[in-house]
Amino acid sequence: MSATIHQLGPSRSPSLDPIIQLVAADLNHVNTVILERMQSKVALIPELAGHLIAGGGKRMRPMLTLACARLLDYPGSRHHKLAAAVEFIHTATLLHDDVVDGSGLRRGRRTANIIWGNPASILVGDFLFSRSFELMVEDGSVKVLRILSRASAVIAEGEVDQLTAQRQVETDEDHYLGIISAKTAALFAAACRIAAVVAERDEDVEQALDAYGRNLGIAFQLIDDAIDYASSAEAMGKGVGDDFRDGKVTLPVILAFARGSDEDRNFWREAMSGGRIDDEDLAHATRLLRQSGAIDDTIARARTYGQRAIDALGPFPAGKAKSALAEAVEFAISRAY
Amino acid sequence: MSATIHQLGPSRSPSLDPIIQLVAADLNHVNTVILERMQSKVALIPELAGHLIAGGGKRMRPMLTLACARLLDYPGSRHHKLAAAVEFIHTATLLHDDVVDGSGLRRGRRTANIIWGNPASILVGDFLFSRSFELMVEDGSVKVLRILSRASAVIAEGEVDQLTAQRQVETDEDHYLGIISAKTAALFAAACRIAAVVAERDEDVEQALDAYGRNLGIAFQLIDDAIDYASSAEAMGKGVGDDFRDGKVTLPVILAFARGSDEDRNFWREAMSGGRIDDEDLAHATRLLRQSGAIDDTIARARTYGQRAIDALGPFPAGKAKSALAEAVEFAISRAY
Repeated sequence: MSATIHQLGPSRSPSLDPIIQLVAADLNHVNTVILERMQSKVALIPELAGHLIAGGGKRMRPMLTLACARLLDYPGSRHHKLAAAVEFIHTATLLHDDVVDGSGLRRGRRTANIIWGNPASILVGDFLFSRSFELMVEDGSVKVLRILSRASAVIAEGEVDQLTAQRQVETDEDHYLGIISAKTAALFAAACRIAAVVAERDEDVEQALDAYGRNLGIAFQLIDDAIDYASSAEAMGKGVGDDFRDGKVTLPVILAFARGSDEDRNFWREAMSGGRIDDEDLAHATRLLRQSGAIDDTIARARTYGQRAIDALGPFPAGKAKSALAEAVEFAISRAY
Repeated sequence: MSATIHQLGPSRSPSLDPIIQLVAADLNHVNTVILERMQSKVALIPELAGHLIAGGGKRMRPMLTLACARLLDYPGSRHHKLAAAVEFIHTATLLHDDVVDGSGLRRGRRTANIIWGNPASILVGDFLFSRSFELMVEDGSVKVLRILSRASAVIAEGEVDQLTAQRQVETDEDHYLGIISAKTAALFAAACRIAAVVAERDEDVEQALDAYGRNLGIAFQLIDDAIDYASSAEAMGKGVGDDFRDGKVTLPVILAFARGSDEDRNFWREAMSGGRIDDEDLAHATRLLRQSGAIDDTIARARTYGQRAIDALGPFPAGKAKSALAEAVEFAISRAY
């Protein structure tokens, strides 16, 4: 817990290196499963899926499954297939998200929908989603299937909820936290929880890992929201201000709107409804966000969720896995600096 | 088998009435599950899903599950949830198909993508797909999960394959049959097969029902292909000539192209690539299809698959269920007249 964090020392910034080293051998197995199981006699499927899967993703979610299994000293290999299933669900979601948002850039590369068109992205997403369930079925655990089918439904619900809230600047913080709990944190939680299932541990272990993943997921998303307004395009791998131009009401905007003058609120209403989205407007938005403390407080909220994630690891014995999982949280937060 | 067909007599045209009557009570239970399980606190989900689910669909696939269970004298109720899962998979597929095809009309009503937009249709499709797996998990049969996750992957593969073949007038008959086996017949087959699983019958019973469903599905799709060129808009519930205008290379076109003169082939090449799609072109296309016997022979192919479906019922005892399943095949074919 906090001891783990203090070990980091002031001279080193938090990184994913410890978790990457911890799971490197397992992740090779997962990558093999991913590459094998995205194949199809229909050539467009591996071509399109490979573009995204090989395209610089951090494999954050499968790494969490692997690291949590290591935390529990799980000696088997069932989690390789299941971590691949988690990555397939994530990839399917990204493919559909990019169509829904009309995105043109992800991780610094052109999106699949731009290269191959929306129809192909939708259908290959459906394929990967189905394939993820085939992988779970091969594993055979109904409990894992329950966790991941539930997570998938919750993700889709969260995405529709966000679509409904789009351009609605009056969305409140609780509603927004509900949206990101669903669309982002549910899969982080499930990725961690299934490690407890394959390791055949009790419900309270499942719950602790679920809490770790869920809080990390929320922190992760809030930091993404903050750096969409505050980072350079290179660091994000997508355009700065994308959320602003898409009228995505994220926590920074919710806080700035709540704290703003009548004039500020009118600005946000016009901006989120798509009326003011040029570079000057974005600069004004960023100014309002900084002045109102909305960016700093979004990061502060993320820190709180991050701390809850680390605290959820409390019951587990100290060691490399616990340190690596805690540092992954610190890393997620540190992206805002 | 053929005796069942002969009983129909010349004075009565085949109908779905027998299968509808056979499963009416069960179908009420299925509809209750469908209505309950398409609910969500995110109001857009039941609104959009309900538009399509309540919108005049015949519930063909769940009816097949129910009728096959009846054929096997299955006394339980597990198939209600599973039939709902099958309908959810089908509905998710329709939502995504309408986005992929840019369709504006289905079953004579405006499509969800026209009313609520593509993003909502994509995401609600994802939700229903996830929900279908939740229903299967509640049932708990890994075998059913295997059958339906496999079918879902095959459907998506078939859809991508069709996308690749779109506007490719040189697509051959075998390739096309592979596409419709995947995108249409796989779910018919799975809907029938799972009845054998819940009734705990042997692999050969599973296979017989799978064969019935698969052949019926192919026949069903081929008749759809034929009446897209030959029927009135009212009978189809979508615009006549939609396939033609979308550059969808279906069996009628494949046969007419193969049999056509150089001039005819040039016409098909231009038409399928989108160069000749006005009403006069459609009239010319229909003329070529009739002259070359392509429509009649597509229907003849469908009849052959229909006969194979009926023959697959051979091992089962005579009775209301068997007659109803056989007549459903006859009905599917009769839509072309």
